[in-house]
Amino acid sequence: MRFALALALAAAPVAAADVPSPGEIVAAAPAAEWVGIAAEDLLVMTLAPDAKGRARRVVIQLMPAPFSQGWVGNIRVLAKAHWWDGTAVTRVQDNYVAQWGDPTEKKALPAGLRHITEADYDATSGDITDADIARLKNETEQQEERAWSLAAARIEPRKAEIASTRNTKAPQGWHERDAYAEWVEVRHGWPLAASGEGMKAIFWPVHCYGMVGVGRNLSPDTGTGAELYTVIGHAPRHLDRNIALVGRVVEGMEHLSSLPRGTGALGVYETAAERTPIVSIRLASELAATERPRLEYLSTDSASFARYVAARANRRDAFFIRPAGGVDVCNMPVPVRRAGAKQ
Amino acid sequence: MRFALALALAAAPVAAADVPSPGEIVAAAPAAEWVGIAAEDLLVMTLAPDAKGRARRVVIQLMPAPFSQGWVGNIRVLAKAHWWDGTAVTRVQDNYVAQWGDPTEKKALPAGLRHITEADYDATSGDITDADIARLKNETEQQEERAWSLAAARIEPRKAEIASTRNTKAPQGWHERDAYAEWVEVRHGWPLAASGEGMKAIFWPVHCYGMVGVGRNLSPDTGTGAELYTVIGHAPRHLDRNIALVGRVVEGMEHLSSLPRGTGALGVYETAAERTPIVSIRLASELAATERPRLEYLSTDSASFARYVAARANRRDAFFIRPAGGVDVCNMPVPVRRAGAKQ
Repeated sequence: MRFALALALAAAPVAAADVPSPGEIVAAAPAAEWVGIAAEDLLVMTLAPDAKGRARRVVIQLMPAPFSQGWVGNIRVLAKAHWWDGTAVTRVQDNYVAQWGDPTEKKALPAGLRHITEADYDATSGDITDADIARLKNETEQQEERAWSLAAARIEPRKAEIASTRNTKAPQGWHERDAYAEWVEVRHGWPLAASGEGMKAIFWPVHCYGMVGVGRNLSPDTGTGAELYTVIGHAPRHLDRNIALVGRVVEGMEHLSSLPRGTGALGVYETAAERTPIVSIRLASELAATERPRLEYLSTDSASFARYVAARANRRDAFFIRPAGGVDVCNMPVPVRRAGAKQ
Repeated sequence: MRFALALALAAAPVAAADVPSPGEIVAAAPAAEWVGIAAEDLLVMTLAPDAKGRARRVVIQLMPAPFSQGWVGNIRVLAKAHWWDGTAVTRVQDNYVAQWGDPTEKKALPAGLRHITEADYDATSGDITDADIARLKNETEQQEERAWSLAAARIEPRKAEIASTRNTKAPQGWHERDAYAEWVEVRHGWPLAASGEGMKAIFWPVHCYGMVGVGRNLSPDTGTGAELYTVIGHAPRHLDRNIALVGRVVEGMEHLSSLPRGTGALGVYETAAERTPIVSIRLASELAATERPRLEYLSTDSASFARYVAARANRRDAFFIRPAGGVDVCNMPVPVRRAGAKQ
């Protein structure tokens, strides 16, 4: 799992701490704070077995509205067309990205792909519609996590209206100093950056480790979604708002991050033999029920998530002697686990 | 090389840009702006050949004064004693660290190791001595890079005195908003964070990708230097000031970052067969001249480095449509190359 429960660097046993570690807080989170990820939001990539014959499966969570839905729609079309079957991981550049797609760059794309414009790299407060607000009034708490907009400016004034129909929770943002944006937070389950205020606020997802984006050629090309990459090093935040982000790896990240680095320019493999073949990429909703990954994430509106972030910003468990007093948006990954793991 | 010269995500040819990219700025830097790394500051780690019989060599640059010199001294003692020969990479945790040392945890340490206290995780302005200032008056420009203190508070008032003996350059700091510290910059060739002012300022090196640190047990243990790790994921800055940093990988990082992740707790390999054997670790100064890596880095006081940082903070080369207007301290790696590569 990429969300390690302990961070001590010594391999020796670690004494119990008086103050819970971030991992201990996550482990103690009640079942109600975990949000199941819908099968139609999961992409299952099966790589060829490794040199020792072991299976390699990577699971990607697709990004929810209001972000990148044009590309996400294309990705669903490509997956349903089985377009990636027989393609490969073509490029692995150290401290940057692992990228996959059609190495020939000639494979015909399926019908039904949309062209998306650069304007869609961002979302705005206005992207939350009256229909979204109407939906909020009726949804269950778990579904609410998905519909609950990032656009606090639009929701805040109508919160009483929404809350009047049932109990609700205010979205809890978390802000920190950031070199790239006016503010950053993890909300709605995703790491985000933003600028502006009120209805003019602009939000965008950010390039943290494990995030999945859409390869493209030079502007105005924005990519179709057929060429994808994931971040395998320090967050390349300069790519934010310049490339579409469409999801994140939630299981099996190590199968991409530990691949040999390509020796060509940009980490491209110089020979076909070096590439890792992709057997298939499927939406989990197209797999047999027994084959579907069942995953859930810790609600970023939950009390446990707030404690987890505070603990990551101020490590006071046994290993630490000086808490930092802060944490950057890419150093507080949203905890993900197999459903039912700890219940 | 970890300092990729181009960042376009498409494998297709990229058109020439009107505005130089960070990599183009580095490539155009004059020879005088490059600083040779002394052989006594380089550690050469030879791993067992990979599954295809290819050699794997990792080169680490040790950190200069005033940082971590107790541990760095221990590391020189351990290397001269050939202590690491026959040890192994014992732990690789995804998005965190690869760690090496004695898997038995029973190997006797050589004589002459010092015990270092937690106070040495930081340096202060006061760590620059009169002797350092005297040395500055006489050194060549290249050597000056090494001696030039981080402690501007102490040097500034005496700059005229130093400059009177020869031409000099003021240290050029670069500050950005940071979630963990009052300010950050890359100076003296290294990524640093700081708090406080004047003679009371405290400085410390930070956990960026590729930085090398000292594994330890619980406080007050600070580690000897026998157990080392390097960062293979997003910067785990919460470790800053809690663990000693002693250097960084400057060549061969991919041989550590692409190792299989361990499946035990904290990424520890569960069987001895999974470990990567370490054939030897030597100071480059102990190798035959023909075996020594000859590396140099772009002076962080140079005009080209200032342009490189500005370009990384405001990408305007052909691939980018929206410059970020900022860059974090771990996303502007100091360029390193083989000596003579571009002259």
